[in-house]
Amino acid sequence: MTLKEKALKIHKDLQGKVEISNKMPIDSREIFGLLYSPGAAEPTREIQKNPETVYDYTWKQNTIAMVSNGTAVLGLGDVGPNAALPVIEGKSMLFRAFSNVGSVPLVLDTKDPDELIRTVEIIAPTFGGINLEDIKAPECVYIEQELQRRLNIPVFHDDQHGTAIVVLAALMNAFKLIDKDLKTAKVVVSGTGAAGSSVIRMLHRYGLSNIYAFNIDGPVDIRHAKFYDPVVQEICNYIEPITDETTLHDLMQNADIFIGVSAAGVLTQEDVRVMASDAVVFAMANLVPEISYDDAIAAGARIAGTGRSDYPNQVNNVLAFPGIFQGALQAKATEINEEMKIAAAYGIASMIPNNELTDTNILPYILDADVADVVARAVAEKAVAMGVVRK
Amino acid sequence: MTLKEKALKIHKDLQGKVEISNKMPIDSREIFGLLYSPGAAEPTREIQKNPETVYDYTWKQNTIAMVSNGTAVLGLGDVGPNAALPVIEGKSMLFRAFSNVGSVPLVLDTKDPDELIRTVEIIAPTFGGINLEDIKAPECVYIEQELQRRLNIPVFHDDQHGTAIVVLAALMNAFKLIDKDLKTAKVVVSGTGAAGSSVIRMLHRYGLSNIYAFNIDGPVDIRHAKFYDPVVQEICNYIEPITDETTLHDLMQNADIFIGVSAAGVLTQEDVRVMASDAVVFAMANLVPEISYDDAIAAGARIAGTGRSDYPNQVNNVLAFPGIFQGALQAKATEINEEMKIAAAYGIASMIPNNELTDTNILPYILDADVADVVARAVAEKAVAMGVVRK
Repeated sequence: MTLKEKALKIHKDLQGKVEISNKMPIDSREIFGLLYSPGAAEPTREIQKNPETVYDYTWKQNTIAMVSNGTAVLGLGDVGPNAALPVIEGKSMLFRAFSNVGSVPLVLDTKDPDELIRTVEIIAPTFGGINLEDIKAPECVYIEQELQRRLNIPVFHDDQHGTAIVVLAALMNAFKLIDKDLKTAKVVVSGTGAAGSSVIRMLHRYGLSNIYAFNIDGPVDIRHAKFYDPVVQEICNYIEPITDETTLHDLMQNADIFIGVSAAGVLTQEDVRVMASDAVVFAMANLVPEISYDDAIAAGARIAGTGRSDYPNQVNNVLAFPGIFQGALQAKATEINEEMKIAAAYGIASMIPNNELTDTNILPYILDADVADVVARAVAEKAVAMGVVRK
Repeated sequence: MTLKEKALKIHKDLQGKVEISNKMPIDSREIFGLLYSPGAAEPTREIQKNPETVYDYTWKQNTIAMVSNGTAVLGLGDVGPNAALPVIEGKSMLFRAFSNVGSVPLVLDTKDPDELIRTVEIIAPTFGGINLEDIKAPECVYIEQELQRRLNIPVFHDDQHGTAIVVLAALMNAFKLIDKDLKTAKVVVSGTGAAGSSVIRMLHRYGLSNIYAFNIDGPVDIRHAKFYDPVVQEICNYIEPITDETTLHDLMQNADIFIGVSAAGVLTQEDVRVMASDAVVFAMANLVPEISYDDAIAAGARIAGTGRSDYPNQVNNVLAFPGIFQGALQAKATEINEEMKIAAAYGIASMIPNNELTDTNILPYILDADVADVVARAVAEKAVAMGVVRK
């Protein structure tokens, strides 16, 4: 069977990849009475008296909503809510497999950002957090910010921040092997969509200042800010000025780091050859990278990584999001801020002990069940230290 | 421990009564690849080509939303969405325990019927059906009707129809024991809220015509229709005329059936004593009935039933809703209409073989795991016969 045939068969056989399960059987009148009528009226009365106890008596303490409108699904684009459901269910599985957080797949039939925000606000009492997923840029940024402003539960758009967190973790470990200072490294970021803008914001927040951005329209510069969407406008504040004539090849001269969150094949071996020594190339375009792992290494990059599982240094969000929500819920965090994301990156990086770090081993295995607990601890500690938690 | 202490403890210990579970473990890169990226893109592409296949590849085939805004919870009234969550989670458990249908508890933070309708419409692509729960009358009737008009998945408000279906099943069996024709019986219904109006509509549809209605304001009559809410206006068409001076006691003269879905203690033994011979009294007010089982029998009723589990003939919606949705989803029904509800009542009634029918045994045990399958078959057959199914 081909991958396609296998994938369709397993989906058909499973009849849904996730399901609602009971935490205990209802096998006596007594249990029925305690868990439903009249017993469920007791926690109801307690929550009426003290709303905070909803976290003690219901699944809100460990369950989030996984919300998408299907406008930016994997490499497929705007497929709509129904067609997005297998992907969102799959992501739900990852939460359950790698953390103690349950997530309910919810595909929404609206493209209007304000209507989507209002819908999530209305369903929010059910959940301890909101993970936004596969919503197109730039609306996704406004949606996330506005929801976080309105809700006192953590809101996180994984497509923006997940990649940024794992890239930062990978850079932290790469620069333990390389005799340079990460904070003064010259970075070229290709792509300024949901992920690219978050990468730039996070590198800036972490302390890097020598960052250049390039996207499908060419070089990005603050002089043209008014023509950009609000997200690119923001990141204009974090990048170095460049002229309109600058090519990606020009930018790659003496670059220490290339980060691709753009499109297949935009980077050539010629581009890699002009980078500084000990260059790092992360080419993460889905499903085909900006340059293949082998081509990047052959052209002289010291460390390379892609989103693919069949080459070393796989950059995958699954290293980040399960632990981030587990930590946020555990700490009763009211938000997931940049500092907590950087803490998550430290947590991921810490999974590879120094004596195991090599050029082809800078990130943990994506199925390593211990990653989420370590990330959760780092995120929870940061939330508590910053005081962004419910009393 | 008191019931209250036991109920609070079990809720706290469980940390949520339901949870999201994976249908298989993600324990290899191959499975990760088939169920998430890149494999989940395959069903996504199929659903883009043929939207109907979302039922083949996702949980939509066996999962519904359990939607409430917490405005009419058990006997507690408008407790709001957070405090409603333990009750809605409990109902979710019942679905899982008694059918093959998963249901996601969703409590909504809106009291505006149109906003609630629009919210459910937006989340609907995720689900194979919508069960409305604990939403106050009369808005609940408009909400259900409007949602069923807009959506091509079944919509069912259990508080309206669940009790009506089980009452009809109980009457079917009671009148196998009593030498009278159910369709010509004189019925007095006390209460014209969500459940009461549905009882009257269903009895009318089943063929009864000698029905009288009484509510908290007194006798209900079509002459005053313009003062009633739209729900009571509708049922005015199904009931007999009465004068404004008529008391509940007057109505009970020679009544064959009393159905109480109103309030504790509204029926006295004096009222029961003036009923016809072989009288049937179903007193289902939550949590204390209109008249106790013992008092009804002592006053001369032949058959009595309440919502309580500690007396014979427990009338509980759990006998109806799990099988109704299981049947509707199995048949690919696009709605749950009155005929399907009557079919469900026949299914419930059929669970007691004639040779086991007695005055104290007219309904199956509420934890009988076979009821839902029988109800599902009856509902599915009716949907197919009527052609209210997706192609």
